[in-house]
Amino acid sequence: MPKQVAYLGPEGTFAEKAAVLLAEQEGIANAKFIPCIGLRSVVEHAATKRCDWAVVPVENSVEGGVSTTLDALWSNPELAIVRSLVLPIRHALLSNGNLSEISEVLSHPQALAQCSNWLNQNLPNALQLSTTSTSEAVRMVKGSHFRAAIASSSAGRVKGLNELAFPINDAVGNRTRFLLLRRGARKNKGNLASLAFSLHANAPGALLEALSCVARLGLNMSRIESRPSKRELGEYVFFIDVEINDLENDIQHELENILNPLCEHLVLFGAYPNSHQDLD
Amino acid sequence: MPKQVAYLGPEGTFAEKAAVLLAEQEGIANAKFIPCIGLRSVVEHAATKRCDWAVVPVENSVEGGVSTTLDALWSNPELAIVRSLVLPIRHALLSNGNLSEISEVLSHPQALAQCSNWLNQNLPNALQLSTTSTSEAVRMVKGSHFRAAIASSSAGRVKGLNELAFPINDAVGNRTRFLLLRRGARKNKGNLASLAFSLHANAPGALLEALSCVARLGLNMSRIESRPSKRELGEYVFFIDVEINDLENDIQHELENILNPLCEHLVLFGAYPNSHQDLD
Repeated sequence: MPKQVAYLGPEGTFAEKAAVLLAEQEGIANAKFIPCIGLRSVVEHAATKRCDWAVVPVENSVEGGVSTTLDALWSNPELAIVRSLVLPIRHALLSNGNLSEISEVLSHPQALAQCSNWLNQNLPNALQLSTTSTSEAVRMVKGSHFRAAIASSSAGRVKGLNELAFPINDAVGNRTRFLLLRRGARKNKGNLASLAFSLHANAPGALLEALSCVARLGLNMSRIESRPSKRELGEYVFFIDVEINDLENDIQHELENILNPLCEHLVLFGAYPNSHQDLD
Repeated sequence: MPKQVAYLGPEGTFAEKAAVLLAEQEGIANAKFIPCIGLRSVVEHAATKRCDWAVVPVENSVEGGVSTTLDALWSNPELAIVRSLVLPIRHALLSNGNLSEISEVLSHPQALAQCSNWLNQNLPNALQLSTTSTSEAVRMVKGSHFRAAIASSSAGRVKGLNELAFPINDAVGNRTRFLLLRRGARKNKGNLASLAFSLHANAPGALLEALSCVARLGLNMSRIESRPSKRELGEYVFFIDVEINDLENDIQHELENILNPLCEHLVLFGAYPNSHQDLD
């Protein structure tokens, strides 16, 4: 019986690449990859047991935290983070025409935004058209001489498009971190731990006190993101990553004990290994 | 000579309403409102003196911080925040047809997302189509009996559409805070102060120390947002709002003195009045 891994479809995007690599790292044999429409749906596939696993992007070095993923994690506290993977995101300009012929550039709005300087300098008069994914853009430009897509090099190779320019993203260090999620008992082994909490309403200095507690445990906070509670403007949910080492096996228990009195609601997503991988 | 106020166009959106109200509050006589395409462009209109003022959304109670605004503020530290205004965001379903006839719903993706529960329950089979703004949606459904737009009640009234349902946004407390920006010397009068900083690279506990400094000045931090530095995954810029009272006239100077040694880069956007207004 193959294990099902939900990811943000369609096929041929960086999200699929991340899903394949994370399944490999986790040693999931005979994984079957299920493309979903929308990040919330990816998370819910794992939360409701329609899939065994889910892979979602959680932060990008240019765009920041992925709000939909953070909100979906907060709504599905039964999910644990099993491991995470950082991938470089490098975009190519793909077409069956030549650069001088291109009058329309198609891609997902985030990819267009990530290449905006390059486009302004090299194709200032080209119309920029939004698609629902980079894969969709590749499909739509195939065979055209005046249209180009922004997508990964490998997506273009598969569809027989030429690479007119690479890389074209403005931030050369553009990276995205992806999470492998699974319903059930959280893990306690790795170099990162993630948690989220809301504080008792508007207590002044409450966030500072929570962060001080984390520091008192000797942990370094590597990331903090705030998301609105969605009840009142000014009420937030905080997502925190702390760096740990594999020896600290009961660190989550300690975090729970020290933070619980301060928090209205506290979710621990587990301790897990985070790794980096380069792509061709 | 009229004073020019840049805002996120087109006309007829909540952003225009906010621009009109903020200009009134500030006593800008003969204001001329300039709709811009894209939030970055709005900010740059004020930063480059093409306009005297700019009005931008900075946070929403459901969607969270507005990344483009935060990034544009960080890139244009010569801008000061002059005042801010919180407006309720309530969406209506507008059409020239009846609810039972509607097969397509058009709006900006954020407005569609904010009404997704209502749409799933009341128009589960209607196609949802994205437009570049709520005003654009209103324009496109005019005269149609099978298309409806999601926009403000007042936008529908102006264009002669019927209000089929109101309010239809899922979060009843949906609110957006808008900023009035101006190039030049920052203000020092009001109940909120905003600042942003990056810390010396990866110093463990540096954020905690910066927040402790703010607390030592007796200030309550009402909001923290992190944005990526765009250089390396894991390097952030932090945006902070602190509550102050009008008497503390040199609080910015104190913040600058206490935070400067910890920060790689520190920007103070000023102390300014924040107010709330209800709409009809």
